[in-house]
Amino acid sequence: MNHHLKKASIISIGNEVLSGRTVDTNAAYIARQLRTVGVPVVSSYTVPDEEAAIQRALQLAGQDADVVITTGGLGPTDDDLTRQAFAAYLGVDLVLQGDLLARLREFFERRGRAMAEKNTIQACLPTGATAIENEMGTAPGLMVEREGRLLLALPGVPREMRHMLDTVVVSRLRAMASGQSVVVRRLRCYGAGESNIAEMLGQAMRRGRNPLVNCTASAGIITLEIVATGPDRGQAEEMASAEEAALREILGSLVYGTGDQSLAEVVGQRLTQSGRTLAVAESCTGGLLAKLITDVPGASRYFAGGWIAYSNEIKTRELGVPQELLDAHGAVSEPVAAAMAQGARRKAGADLAVAITGIAGPTGGSEQKPVGLVYIAVSGQEGTDTPKYVFPQDRSSVRLRAAQTALDTLRLRLEV
Amino acid sequence: MNHHLKKASIISIGNEVLSGRTVDTNAAYIARQLRTVGVPVVSSYTVPDEEAAIQRALQLAGQDADVVITTGGLGPTDDDLTRQAFAAYLGVDLVLQGDLLARLREFFERRGRAMAEKNTIQACLPTGATAIENEMGTAPGLMVEREGRLLLALPGVPREMRHMLDTVVVSRLRAMASGQSVVVRRLRCYGAGESNIAEMLGQAMRRGRNPLVNCTASAGIITLEIVATGPDRGQAEEMASAEEAALREILGSLVYGTGDQSLAEVVGQRLTQSGRTLAVAESCTGGLLAKLITDVPGASRYFAGGWIAYSNEIKTRELGVPQELLDAHGAVSEPVAAAMAQGARRKAGADLAVAITGIAGPTGGSEQKPVGLVYIAVSGQEGTDTPKYVFPQDRSSVRLRAAQTALDTLRLRLEV
Repeated sequence: MNHHLKKASIISIGNEVLSGRTVDTNAAYIARQLRTVGVPVVSSYTVPDEEAAIQRALQLAGQDADVVITTGGLGPTDDDLTRQAFAAYLGVDLVLQGDLLARLREFFERRGRAMAEKNTIQACLPTGATAIENEMGTAPGLMVEREGRLLLALPGVPREMRHMLDTVVVSRLRAMASGQSVVVRRLRCYGAGESNIAEMLGQAMRRGRNPLVNCTASAGIITLEIVATGPDRGQAEEMASAEEAALREILGSLVYGTGDQSLAEVVGQRLTQSGRTLAVAESCTGGLLAKLITDVPGASRYFAGGWIAYSNEIKTRELGVPQELLDAHGAVSEPVAAAMAQGARRKAGADLAVAITGIAGPTGGSEQKPVGLVYIAVSGQEGTDTPKYVFPQDRSSVRLRAAQTALDTLRLRLEV
Repeated sequence: MNHHLKKASIISIGNEVLSGRTVDTNAAYIARQLRTVGVPVVSSYTVPDEEAAIQRALQLAGQDADVVITTGGLGPTDDDLTRQAFAAYLGVDLVLQGDLLARLREFFERRGRAMAEKNTIQACLPTGATAIENEMGTAPGLMVEREGRLLLALPGVPREMRHMLDTVVVSRLRAMASGQSVVVRRLRCYGAGESNIAEMLGQAMRRGRNPLVNCTASAGIITLEIVATGPDRGQAEEMASAEEAALREILGSLVYGTGDQSLAEVVGQRLTQSGRTLAVAESCTGGLLAKLITDVPGASRYFAGGWIAYSNEIKTRELGVPQELLDAHGAVSEPVAAAMAQGARRKAGADLAVAITGIAGPTGGSEQKPVGLVYIAVSGQEGTDTPKYVFPQDRSSVRLRAAQTALDTLRLRLEV
């Protein structure tokens, strides 16, 4: 293979993808992984479970790219036609492989099941192709070179596809890539909008720059992706580190973590490090905050638990919120949020407690207290802070933003 | 236009989609909507923000289909090139439209902002094309006919795209479709695996049948989609109803709802109908069950709240679980689950309470109590049931299946 910059094209195969019954997450996953080895995806095709359509897509993708990756159509049923389409495209036969068949039979035996005759097709390969072992299922992938192009067929089941891609394909592509090394780093930010962050970064986000900085936003979390391309891994790492330091300098405490870290993970780390424990009292988020906290394995080390104080009775009886506060200020108010946090902290015997009360909507808002109004109280030894927010949009956005902001408030408190 | 069965092809435009920074949900949404008017999507292409690539995709898609829909590339910046590519593909000029420009300026004025000169491009259309109004943003869509084909350009922002598709495009396609009417219905099931349900349904799921029955599974919820095609709406509705009745007859109480209903919605409806209230006590699900319940607007009518009894102290002190039970059986056990539910019901003063205790993993399992072991207790006036489950796979799957199964147990209890 020659050493110009390699490009890739993806073909997603399957009626369930085309009809919209399944959203295709495979293509995005493959594109992200290939970028880390410096092989950008330049086109992508989705085709039905039809041999002719797959064959045509292989031709088109081969015009676009040096590496063509298909997903799907490797199952044992009659509408799994990827193997046949590869053979037709290559102009070769599909040949039964004794060793693959033995491995398939073994796979079923280990599970105490007999192999159906249908599965035999999964042990067939186009002449000249090699199998890629599937450690997560029955269908082996396949890999074949043709006219300087590398063609790969991977399963459609995301778990099987990802494992095969990560363990076999990525290293193979790294070896054949252009000699340029690519390092990708992610900084995760919270507390400012996408456009604010873009403004703060200015020139750093210019297109065509190296390192390149991409920005994506999801549920209030801004992810900055640094893509550094250098002549070798060491230099690319160095460029990425310098860029990361520059961005951190500008963004300060807006940066809460790296990679795929969630706010709850960072809060968990800081609680563990400082040996402190946490409790929650949730009204409008109704368990979402606690759910995010306990998404993190091992959360029981620092998370005591808490109350879903949806009704006023639970607020007063269980958390000791004075009825007079509720009468005077209403359930969605600063003093009630503070009293909920203090009550949760005291009753759980925790070092810190967070309480959330607000109006998630779609109904229940008023002029003084609109939908989206949320009070977040953080109570600790040093006292109780109760910032007020108005989050935009629908019920699920308000709830998610409220829970994330509660975690962020806690993170900043734990920084001190 | 002639009246053979129409087909559609989708082109997703944008570097952010190709690079995997954004997962393309637009294509699946469009495919689902088009199916309801009898226009199946037969191919789909993803291309970068490059005029030549978009133009080539328009050619390829035009070979596949009678209707070509692009998404993306209608923004005001230099890398938004869909309008230019349409003009080049059609061999016509891009012409500034006075009325569109006036409407754009008005859009900005209403928001108290000045229109940037960059936005002018959004008021340009290829000669012969008509604009589709964008009620959710600045970029109008465009629609043009060429050689009996309908070409449509829609924005990439899902909210804007969906609104335009639903309000303008779908009715337009319905009018031009083949005269066949298509009715799509969904039955939502819980409590059996995809393959079990397929076995129960047998012939009903044969390919090529009318009505067609498709099956998809997500987080334990099986969705059966009935697609009935008839000469007119009335007959298609009748066919769909007959099929729905037949499936319900076979599946019995496995069917919990229709359309996009969640288990929590159905539980909420039944609680409201029977005038009963609910409380929860969650250990391993850590707030997820309450979160699902309070995802439903108006849940405060029947949901009192509950406890996230993550630590044993909260189980004993707040829910009154006897320490001896914990010592004798451990926190993950039938008697502790039952005591948690009874305690939650009593302390919240609710008619019903559900408790969950289990081992979500990844650590904490043993031979007797493996990761995935979960006890779900439902306590009411009639007593307490505490079924035991072992859910497979990772922490988040175990938690989600536990919470969903708790809702399903509650649904079946409320059926009586």
